Amino acid sequence: MSEIPVTPLLDTVDTPSDLRKLDQSQLRQLADELRAEMISAVGTTGGHLGSGLGVVELTTAIHYVFDTPRDRVIWDVGHQAYPHKILTGRRSRIRTLRQGGGLSGFTKRSESEYDPFGAAHSSTSISAALGFAVANKIAGKPGKAIAVIGDGAMSAGMAYEAMNNAEQAGNRLIVILNDNDMSIAPPVGGLSSYLARIVSSREFLSIRELARKLARKLPKALHSAARKTDSFARGMAMGGTLFEELGFYYVGPIDGHDLEHLIPVLENVRDAAEGPCLIHVVTTKGKGYGPAEESADKYHGVQKFDVITGAQAKAPPGPPSYTSVFAKALIAEGERDPTICAITAAMPGGTGVDSFGAAFPDRSFDVGIAEQHAVTFAAGLAAQGMRPFCAIYSTFLQRAYDQVVHDVAIQNLPVRFAIDRAGLVGADGATHAGSFDVTYLASLPNFVVMAAADEAELVNMVHTCAMHDSGPIAVRYPRGNGTGVALPEVPELLEIGKGRIVRQGKKVAILSLGTRLAEALKAADILDAKGLSTTVADLRFAKPLDVELIRKLLISHEVAVTVEEASIGGLGAHVLTMASDEGLIDGGLKLRTLRLPDVFQDHDKPELQYKEAGLDAESIVETVLKALRMNSVGVVEEVRA
Amino acid sequence: MSEIPVTPLLDTVDTPSDLRKLDQSQLRQLADELRAEMISAVGTTGGHLGSGLGVVELTTAIHYVFDTPRDRVIWDVGHQAYPHKILTGRRSRIRTLRQGGGLSGFTKRSESEYDPFGAAHSSTSISAALGFAVANKIAGKPGKAIAVIGDGAMSAGMAYEAMNNAEQAGNRLIVILNDNDMSIAPPVGGLSSYLARIVSSREFLSIRELARKLARKLPKALHSAARKTDSFARGMAMGGTLFEELGFYYVGPIDGHDLEHLIPVLENVRDAAEGPCLIHVVTTKGKGYGPAEESADKYHGVQKFDVITGAQAKAPPGPPSYTSVFAKALIAEGERDPTICAITAAMPGGTGVDSFGAAFPDRSFDVGIAEQHAVTFAAGLAAQGMRPFCAIYSTFLQRAYDQVVHDVAIQNLPVRFAIDRAGLVGADGATHAGSFDVTYLASLPNFVVMAAADEAELVNMVHTCAMHDSGPIAVRYPRGNGTGVALPEVPELLEIGKGRIVRQGKKVAILSLGTRLAEALKAADILDAKGLSTTVADLRFAKPLDVELIRKLLISHEVAVTVEEASIGGLGAHVLTMASDEGLIDGGLKLRTLRLPDVFQDHDKPELQYKEAGLDAESIVETVLKALRMNSVGVVEEVRA
Repeated sequence: MSEIPVTPLLDTVDTPSDLRKLDQSQLRQLADELRAEMISAVGTTGGHLGSGLGVVELTTAIHYVFDTPRDRVIWDVGHQAYPHKILTGRRSRIRTLRQGGGLSGFTKRSESEYDPFGAAHSSTSISAALGFAVANKIAGKPGKAIAVIGDGAMSAGMAYEAMNNAEQAGNRLIVILNDNDMSIAPPVGGLSSYLARIVSSREFLSIRELARKLARKLPKALHSAARKTDSFARGMAMGGTLFEELGFYYVGPIDGHDLEHLIPVLENVRDAAEGPCLIHVVTTKGKGYGPAEESADKYHGVQKFDVITGAQAKAPPGPPSYTSVFAKALIAEGERDPTICAITAAMPGGTGVDSFGAAFPDRSFDVGIAEQHAVTFAAGLAAQGMRPFCAIYSTFLQRAYDQVVHDVAIQNLPVRFAIDRAGLVGADGATHAGSFDVTYLASLPNFVVMAAADEAELVNMVHTCAMHDSGPIAVRYPRGNGTGVALPEVPELLEIGKGRIVRQGKKVAILSLGTRLAEALKAADILDAKGLSTTVADLRFAKPLDVELIRKLLISHEVAVTVEEASIGGLGAHVLTMASDEGLIDGGLKLRTLRLPDVFQDHDKPELQYKEAGLDAESIVETVLKALRMNSVGVVEEVRA
Repeated sequence: MSEIPVTPLLDTVDTPSDLRKLDQSQLRQLADELRAEMISAVGTTGGHLGSGLGVVELTTAIHYVFDTPRDRVIWDVGHQAYPHKILTGRRSRIRTLRQGGGLSGFTKRSESEYDPFGAAHSSTSISAALGFAVANKIAGKPGKAIAVIGDGAMSAGMAYEAMNNAEQAGNRLIVILNDNDMSIAPPVGGLSSYLARIVSSREFLSIRELARKLARKLPKALHSAARKTDSFARGMAMGGTLFEELGFYYVGPIDGHDLEHLIPVLENVRDAAEGPCLIHVVTTKGKGYGPAEESADKYHGVQKFDVITGAQAKAPPGPPSYTSVFAKALIAEGERDPTICAITAAMPGGTGVDSFGAAFPDRSFDVGIAEQHAVTFAAGLAAQGMRPFCAIYSTFLQRAYDQVVHDVAIQNLPVRFAIDRAGLVGADGATHAGSFDVTYLASLPNFVVMAAADEAELVNMVHTCAMHDSGPIAVRYPRGNGTGVALPEVPELLEIGKGRIVRQGKKVAILSLGTRLAEALKAADILDAKGLSTTVADLRFAKPLDVELIRKLLISHEVAVTVEEASIGGLGAHVLTMASDEGLIDGGLKLRTLRLPDVFQDHDKPELQYKEAGLDAESIVETVLKALRMNSVGVVEEVRA
């Protein structure tokens, strides 16, 4: 927890219309108070810090210059939008960020009219902004659309697709490239800010427009040369030819922390006559908070912390995370086999590929936010004899679904998928939940789909992936820490499509896939105590199913329940389909499938999310009792007709 | 059918090693014979013609210069690879193209070692080539990877993602941009070909490399300026700065039909010392065949045709295609409602959006091969009050799966999806089959998923989509022609989640989704004749299910079968899950689910594909009889224990 800062000016601003009443000379103080408030709030809640600190001035300037919410501001990813939330009527709830029932850690339409388009996955903002701009154009309504997108997000193909289509929006579309990586521009000097101001001015634009109109009347070859001369000349001075080639009017780079540079440029662009505009703003991640600026990751995502010292609350010591177990297991495979390689799409730390890369720099690839490329690149590697592991979060692998189908599954290429963050993810909420991978992978011919029940199983499954050369194979595992089970010294090669009995009983069978196994075992204890002897199986494979084991369990138990942290269409559907194909249901079968519910679950503590989803031990017990028409004390209820 | 041309030189070439024995002066004749052979073959089989004709010389030159199959040639999309197939040991089978059991209309790994990476969806080639190149680099093996990609395919985000990552491949990667649209370059003159030859030469590259090495020792700012000066100077002369910014060494544009330009440039690039190279080749689609060159679509895809006249075999007159019915229905909605708009991703003709665009040019958007952008753009339009229809083939919508989940479903935005080519697609084969959309859409919260049973239903469903403002909604329909049923004069607004009984019986219930309804009705007739009175329901909705109707049908019939042209996880899985959730299966339920099989079905005649899939009337009957343990004459068989 941290003290609430003194913010006399910010206290007068509830919404952007209050902000727009201030004199421009007051904005520096406002930005300072906004920054202090944000640091204090995130100190209390934890969350994304560095990105928000980097856009305090930009947020202030945008709402000062543009007529929000009529003008639509779309924050790419949305994790940098905390200052935006404070300025748009949500200050009173800012200390509920990412808490159950509280504000989302991203932008969200249901939260505010100032969030016209929710986000959380990267690189969607330009496409969405184009939609807003074109809708206004068709309706003949006023209103700009402003996409604010980071330089990293620009590496995703969909940003390029959108920029390629931007011209149709005319001057209703403004893209602000928030460059906090120095990867595109050199540091900003006074000259370039001066130039940016000049080229964004109405006078310059008018001259340019006139020149263009003239050029259009020239023969085509000359016209093209004239256009090139214009953009190359400016490109030489200022960079940005890539954007010019895609049809944008490029302005920048400018200092994103200097309100006296930002505001006139934004005003000029707002009033510009022609074409979509890209403003290149250079910012510093973590700006204005010493501990963040000095940290390697600029406090990208933090736990609660002490504002004075910057010290973050430490998680109590516990078992290793699934991610770190995966990384170690992969390194072991890499030592054994020189063809093992690893691919990440801009998540080296999150996936553990950074550790593999430290051990094997030549066999580790960070392709940027480019999941589509990552998967087809892996397919190419596999086709030429490598054994690639694509380590991608479940929710982000959705970006490469067609590549998984078309380049990997149809060609039956042995690409290994390490699917981290599978299932519910707590504070990141619905946009980051890995709900669908079992459904969308197990429906594909040729695929092997595994889920690890604990971190020891993960080690075995990584090894099984490495050894599986006959086609694509995936292993899914959740966010967070393992169970503390001992890791195998030598990993076991699992037989494809074979599950295991973890606990033998007689009356009830729980068929578990993945880490819900622990809850299944708890449920079994409860059921046993009620006199319902319970078997628990860890099926390991959603595809191919262990048909023999499943058949045996279904036939020999009075009731069976499948349990998985996945949507409809996953393990449960496959077991039911098999039971139907084989006619096992003809004579009566008490089979139930527990799965993620048919809603997008909001962010909350994981244990509450599991309860809401009906995937905790109590829910399993309840399902079994209901199937047996028993009440909670184990007494058979009267059957209603 | 057409006469087989006289091809004395081509007759001596079975594989590229034969080709490489020829003198360069013989290649012009070889290319001419190759072109004649290709025209003759496609005249016999139908297929893709224009694209292949455009790359006859390029294909010849690539195999002449590079050491295929050790050097890997990857044809983007692959529909231009017929000349490649003729030169790589498949000439004897070239008149089996796209026929059942014959050659694929695309590249295919299982067909030849000269097809290192299969394709059919666009824009995958650079990622795959990068995989091959990097695998060789890691293994220290020789071998280049050459991606040949069209200018249209360059609009897809994944091509950009791949180019952004190309530098790591070094000079093992060569991208040949086959520009047949004139959209990037002006027509080619002698000067630019001359320049291309110069800048691709070893001498020029060495000088440049030296300059670069020097530049690296300068202070960073100067280095960057030096680099820019180099690329801008060349860009001013020749275009291509976009590629230079992405790290390619750009060569071109050159005339792709002039072997004397092509071969020295390819040789120079093959022997170049440093970095990935992009060769910009300008070709004419349909080149060398008058009727194709003169046609608006350059004979992109053709029926069998007469080689002399170019006249294509006409399909017998019949009912309208689903695509044309969709287009007319959408135009009617557009006339009624000014917020209706349509989006296509480079398939205006294939989806019928061209007709809508002719009626409403301001409300029609062709975004290029950019499905990801298409969907999020539609989401933005919907969020700003428009009623957008995204018309995308089922198989290509896979490219935008994450956008469907993250931008549409989670935000519950009313984007309408018109999913053409759903189900099996005949000659285009597995890569184009629309097998998975029911599974991947019906598992998403908030989604409504419909399938049209015939073209009249399609009209009603388009109207139902247009009127559905509370969330996302999709209608799927197949390739090909409707059933000939009368179209409604005024479309009916369907109740969401309600099916209909088409035929009432007593003993057997067939629950159909989509156009398999006709086969379901045939099956019902056969079953009735066997004394098994059969009900047929058209469920219309895969989501939400008509729970009431389904429950009633399951309870009141002895056996029930679901039928759909979709993979596991679709309607059948949802009906089974509901029957399990409700406990309907507890007391015994003869329920079977017919669906697409768990294989990628090869190209063939549609009726044979349906038979193979077990989705024809006979297979439905067989499934019912088997469930009833009856043989084909309706006699109950002895039950085995």
